[in-house]
Formats: sequence, C-alpha cells, structure tokens
Amino acid sequence: MTQLCFLTATELARRIRRRDVSAIDVLRAHVEQIERTNTQINAIVTTTFEAAQADAQRVDAQLARGEDPGPLAGLPVAHKDLTITKGVRTTFGSPIFKDFVPDRDALIVERLKAAGAVTVGKTNTPEFGAGSQTFNPVFGATRNPWDPTRTTGGSSGGAAAALACGMVPIADGTDLGGSLRNPASFCNVVGFRSTPGRVPMWPSLNAWFPLGIAGPMARTVEDAALMLSAMAGPDPRSPISVHQPGAMFAAPLGRDFRGARVAWSPDLGGLPVERPVRDVLAQALPALADIGCVVEEATPDLAAVDEIFEVLRAWHFEMAHGELVRSKRDQVKQTVIWNVEAGAKLTGADVGRAERLRTELFHRLREFFTRFDFLVCPVVQVQPFDVDKEYPMEVDGHAMGSYLEWMRSCSRISATSLPALSVPAGFTPDGLPVGLQIVGPYLDDFAVLQLGHAFEQATGFTGKRPPLTAG
Amino acid sequence: MTQLCFLTATELARRIRRRDVSAIDVLRAHVEQIERTNTQINAIVTTTFEAAQADAQRVDAQLARGEDPGPLAGLPVAHKDLTITKGVRTTFGSPIFKDFVPDRDALIVERLKAAGAVTVGKTNTPEFGAGSQTFNPVFGATRNPWDPTRTTGGSSGGAAAALACGMVPIADGTDLGGSLRNPASFCNVVGFRSTPGRVPMWPSLNAWFPLGIAGPMARTVEDAALMLSAMAGPDPRSPISVHQPGAMFAAPLGRDFRGARVAWSPDLGGLPVERPVRDVLAQALPALADIGCVVEEATPDLAAVDEIFEVLRAWHFEMAHGELVRSKRDQVKQTVIWNVEAGAKLTGADVGRAERLRTELFHRLREFFTRFDFLVCPVVQVQPFDVDKEYPMEVDGHAMGSYLEWMRSCSRISATSLPALSVPAGFTPDGLPVGLQIVGPYLDDFAVLQLGHAFEQATGFTGKRPPLTAG
Repeated sequence: MTQLCFLTATELARRIRRRDVSAIDVLRAHVEQIERTNTQINAIVTTTFEAAQADAQRVDAQLARGEDPGPLAGLPVAHKDLTITKGVRTTFGSPIFKDFVPDRDALIVERLKAAGAVTVGKTNTPEFGAGSQTFNPVFGATRNPWDPTRTTGGSSGGAAAALACGMVPIADGTDLGGSLRNPASFCNVVGFRSTPGRVPMWPSLNAWFPLGIAGPMARTVEDAALMLSAMAGPDPRSPISVHQPGAMFAAPLGRDFRGARVAWSPDLGGLPVERPVRDVLAQALPALADIGCVVEEATPDLAAVDEIFEVLRAWHFEMAHGELVRSKRDQVKQTVIWNVEAGAKLTGADVGRAERLRTELFHRLREFFTRFDFLVCPVVQVQPFDVDKEYPMEVDGHAMGSYLEWMRSCSRISATSLPALSVPAGFTPDGLPVGLQIVGPYLDDFAVLQLGHAFEQATGFTGKRPPLTAG
Repeated sequence: MTQLCFLTATELARRIRRRDVSAIDVLRAHVEQIERTNTQINAIVTTTFEAAQADAQRVDAQLARGEDPGPLAGLPVAHKDLTITKGVRTTFGSPIFKDFVPDRDALIVERLKAAGAVTVGKTNTPEFGAGSQTFNPVFGATRNPWDPTRTTGGSSGGAAAALACGMVPIADGTDLGGSLRNPASFCNVVGFRSTPGRVPMWPSLNAWFPLGIAGPMARTVEDAALMLSAMAGPDPRSPISVHQPGAMFAAPLGRDFRGARVAWSPDLGGLPVERPVRDVLAQALPALADIGCVVEEATPDLAAVDEIFEVLRAWHFEMAHGELVRSKRDQVKQTVIWNVEAGAKLTGADVGRAERLRTELFHRLREFFTRFDFLVCPVVQVQPFDVDKEYPMEVDGHAMGSYLEWMRSCSRISATSLPALSVPAGFTPDGLPVGLQIVGPYLDDFAVLQLGHAFEQATGFTGKRPPLTAG
C-alpha cells in the first residue's frame, strides 16, 4: 500500500479515474501512512478520517455511475490550519482558537472539495502563520522528515512535511513572506506562490491585500499545476481575481526552453546565503543550460524592497491581529505582538510611501522582464535549522536584526507581486534538501511552472523520499 | 459646418471612414466651433491646432490608401489637463506647473492617438482636480454652456462643457469622487466611471489605487462606449488591469430590459437632494418601467462609506501632493492643503480600517446585486450652482461640513468600486440639466452602458444643445 502514497498526484488521479484503484483504497493507504509517520513528524494536527471515508465512497460511487467527480477525484488532501474549514477545528496555531470550529469553508477548500479531493485533516502552522518555523503552543513543532531534529520551515510546514512523508499527494498552503516556498525547499517538495488574484482569497479581511496568497504544494511541479487548476480562476468574492480560468493549468507543461533568457541571482542583491545552500544551487544551475536556457548572472534593482515588505506586513498584522493583541496579549506569541506593535506605529504616510515604492519596484521588474524571461535565485538562505531554535540569529556570519530577516530571499519576491516557484534542486552534504526559486513575469504563472517542470526533469531530485518513509 | 459638430461621434466616425467627409474638414468645423464658443465658456485651455492639422491629414491619407486608421479615426478629442501629454503643456490647474511640458503621453492618450483620434487641446480642471468645481489660478473658471453664470462642475468640467458646446465629440476625463459624472450631469452629456482596472492607469504614483479612474465622456452613451473601446483593455503597465479586451465595448448596446430588476435610491441613504433635482429624476424614472424594468425603491447598506472614501482620498492626497504642500504651500489652493493635512494625520491603522470596511462594503454590494441587476440614483444633489461659489455650503437646507460633502452621491459610489454612468435625465424649470446615475455589478461595465443607452433612447434628452450653440 505504501507505494500508492508515493505515486504522483497526477498518476494517482489517473488510476482512480480509470478505476484501477478505488478512492477508498487510496484513502486507506494514506491513513496508514499518516498513522505510521505522523507521530514522529507532527505534520497533520487534526484528522477527519470518518468524513474522508464518506467522501471517498462518494467518489467511487460517482465513478461507478460513469459521472465525473472532478479533476482531483479521490486525491487525499490536507488543509493548512490557517485556512477555515466548515465543521473542522481551525486553530490558526493559537491557544485562543484551540476549539474554534468554523461554520463555512474558505473558497479554496470549497474548490478542492468540488474538484473531488478528499480532506483527511489539517496541517500544522506557526501561530497566525508568523515566523516561517512551524511550532505553536497548541500542537507543538512539526519536524523535518529529512532530519527530525530540524525544522520544516513554515508557515506551510505541516503541509510540506506531510507531502514529503507520503501522508497526502497534494496540500494547500499560504504565502505572505515565503510560506509556500521555504517549507517546500526544506522538505524537497514543490510550493508555488502565484500572482496575486490567480487564486482568489476569501474570506479576507482586506480583499485587495497583495501579499497573502494561497497556493498548491505537491511533490512534483506537474502535481502542483494540477492542484492549481482546481484552485485558480475568477470568483466574484475576490475583486482582484484574475479572469483566466484555472483549467489553463491542467495543460501539458512541456515546452522547448532553447534560447530562454534566465537571470541567475545568487543572493538577490547582497543577502547572506549559507555555503551549503550556495553549493547545491551552483551544482544544480547547469541543468538550466542543459535544457537550452541562456543563463546570465543578473539581479533586478530591488531598492526599498525590504521597506515595502516590512511596512505592508506590519500594517496587515495590525489590521488582522491588533484587536487580539490588545484584548488577549498574554495569549499571543511575542513575534506577533512585535509585528502588531510595528504596525501600530506606522503613519498613513508610511503606508502610502510603501505603496509608491512598490509601484516603482513593479515597473523596474517589468522592465527587467523585457530583458529576461525568468529570474532564478535561492529560495532560502539557510539549511533547515534546529527545530528548537525559533529562527536563525545569524546567516553565513551575518547577524539577523529581526525574525523576518532570514526569509528575505522569499519576502523580497513577495513584494514584487511576481509568481515564484520552489522546486527541489539537490541536497547538502548533511542530506538536507535545498530548493531553487524560479520567478517569472507578472501573471505568467504558467511559464514559471513550465520551467520548474523542465528543471525537475533535468535534475531528478523531485520525488526523492526521506529515509524514514522507507519500508 | 456647425452641424458636423453635433453629429454623434459614432456617426461622424462612420462618415469619415466612408470618406463622406474628410478628417480635415471635420477638424476645421470643430476649430471654428471652439473659436466661436470657447471665449465665453473657457472649456479648452490649451490648443494644438497645428499638430491636429497634421494628424487629420494623416488620417485622410491613410483612408485614401485604403488603410485602417483606427476606430476613432479623425474624431477631434481634447485631453483633461490633469492627464499628461507629450510635448503639450499640462498644468494640473496649478501655477506651479503652468509651464510644464511632459515628455511622454499618459497611456490613455497613447491609446486614443493609436485609435486615430485627433488631439485639439487640453480641457480645464480645478487645481489638482480637487473640488468638483472647475476653476484655477492659471486659466480661471469654466462656465456652464446652459447658463454661463453657473459652474460646469468638475473636475472634468472643461471636457463636459466642450462636449456640450460641440467643440469636440469625445473627451477623456478622470474620476476620483465624481469627476466624470458630476460635470456630465451639469452639462447634459455622458460620463462613465468604469470598474477600477477597466481603463489601465499609467503613469500612476500608486498603481493599485482604486479610486482614481480615467474614462470616456461624450454626448451619447453609444459614443462613450465607442471611446471606451479604445481606452479599455489590459496593459502590462497597470497591474490591476482587467483582462478583457476593450473591443468588447464596440459591440451594439441594444438589449431587451424586460424583467431587469432595478433598485431606485432617491438619496443613497439619507443624502440631502435639492427639490429641482428630485423632481427631474421623479419624472424621468418611469422611462425605466417603460422599457420593461421592474423598479423598486431600495438602497444598499452603505455603512461607513463616507469614512472609506474620505480616508482613502486624504491618504492619496498626502501621497500625491504632500511634498508640494510642504515645499510650496503658498502656491497650493486651500482645499488641497486641507486634504493633504487630513492625510498627514492618518495612522496606518486608520488606512487599514478603511480597507477592512471597504472589503465589507464590497461584499454587501455583491449581495445587493444578487437581488438587483442595477442601482439607479441621483448623480448630483444640487443643480449647477453659481460659478463664483467655490462649493455649495448647504444642500436642501442641510449645511455641508466640508467641500467634499455635496458630492457624496458620486463619492459613495466611488468607494464601492462599481461601474457608474451619468446619463442625461431632463432639465429643471430653470433649464439646467440633471443626470441619472446608473450603477451596475462589479466588472459589468457593459451592462451599465446598455441600460444607459436604453434610457437615453426612451427619454430623448441626450444630444439636446444649449441655446448658445444655436445658429
């Protein structure tokens, strides 16, 4: 049964659809895999096996009647515990919400269900998603399947670890400053942050907020694209939603990359990057030339990018969590309080300045992408670090000024509004995974997935299983 | 020749394309009309007749060679003096910029030129567009063609007056709090504020700003739609631009409105409206029933709408003009200083609260538009007032707390992000025009134009000429 859990989602969906295997058998295999590996890893923090059984039976019944149960029919899925699920506990990793049971599904959960995916549970996340290290006082820490003494990163850390362990073939995540990409890099899986509006966000306190994005995670780029095809597409509940239908992401990803112009930025404008990460990426990079890309070292002008990101993030934290910090301060983690307080200090003019700078950045990147088709760079600046450490205090000998700084290789891209993929690129001498970040032009999400797909085929790291899943 | 100046743009474009009349003759007729009426009205403040002659000749030459010079070929157009024009003075109505000559065109000017329109000049606007009354220290006031002792409204007041006088058949405008709609209502012409992103805005200090929108003005709805077909459609310079092509607005506007559900709000939630305005609209309203609409009195829940608008406006004014107010305060008009200072007092949390409230408002309107297909309401709360008055200090016996309050029938709709049309609806006993505001669902700009077209056909006020243009 275990091998069912390491098929690609694409292959698994095909077999279910052809009735080579039943959705109920697929579910059973994944439940067993969760029971086998989750105790050690703590990726899935709430399970919904009973409802999942009914859902899987419904898929099998629909297939038996010749009906179409949707593109993700019978695929087990787990939803991030920041994403609300009707009738299923959603804690946001906060003790304040430890017993919160929403009365409705988030839009993406609705869509995944409508596409036939079978919810098996909720994945762990840091408290309110803050900090890119997946631990919280409700469920504790999620451990890295490649080395359980280390972190999975975050905030979609539970999702990334669950995928790496074969607990699910697809999982949703969200990304404000790197939360779909950094855990993917740390766990040798794929995470895709699309252009804002590609995946409509609802509910959302600020329907126009450009930083917080939901997206697909999977073990291959093709699987992430399949999942995205069900998540993307316009919805009247999101005023910024992009008009193009999600189904465009179900198209074959194959493409000839000969002559594609790729900018390689080893440090995104001077960021410290640990030696083992640099080495892995240096070894992986020739794969791009092998598939025909013309690779040139170049970094776009990212002036003011950290100010843009940090101002908008703090502004959003104040909006989202300010009231909670004021009313229940003792039950909120210190970094969230710190971020809310930074937000409370902002003037309207500070936020206006960030928006003006963001506009200038957008145009500089737009011009950059007339010279290049893609930008590639590190996803993370560090290897997966000790699970007991809240965040790295220094990177490659440089002290980090706040808990946000070590994630700048991701958060700088968030501030640009550009689509960005984390795809497996190799392993450090300690056997720890490292991802490559592929960034594309605004709204050209499909091209980013295409390059990711070609890269993973050329390198072959995708789908490698952590030792603890053997046997 | 004068009658050429009162053909619809649609008809005029058809005749030019068929070579029934040359672009150069059309230009000559309009130049004469400008010379005849502009001295009294002061709608066009900078003329470009020499360049226009070359452009018109080029159109005629292209047509003679059988080439397609574009959908607006040979139509004289004037650009608002807030919109930058390459090589043509652009003052923003400010003495600081009285000699400013931009080195590039705004995106919409590029598009109008590319569509074959012939620029004849720039239209007057209040200083930095503020105040919805068209006067400034550079050019003085624009007068209402229906009664030159009264205002045209603003800020696209020069455009509206130029259209009413037959100086141009189409003119662009912009709208933050009502600037495409209020002057259209005051001058018996048509102004259309589309959904944000429908007409991409560039250059723009804040590319994501939802309130400031460029749009078409004309003497008929069909002409406004024709102009919009050249202005709308995606552009990579505007990240919020809507994907649908502009050409969709060139489709015929005819539609069967039997059974269409129309909400009629006489006061948009308790706004004072002057008796003559109310009376005109009450008389015009049955036309909607005549074309088959089911009209019911209903107002959406607009809670917090004025806070949303005023916070975002002040925030934007600080961003756009703060530096100028600090460095050249004595050269900036008092209401702009007041608005910038209001913006400077805002905290980030105030702006965040406005965005949260705006999200809630968006969702309430979304639900409202599941029960109704359209909302109709007054464009303006007052008749065109004395041109020497800066703004109405009271409306229907209610004191106005600021220079913004009398425009709330427009600015409340701006805050909703919904498309809104001002279409002629009749005249007060003093012979002053009054418009009806037609609001539609988010992104359903075409439906709004369709209802406006049916309404103007049923009522027949569109295209009525002010007495001073006779003979």
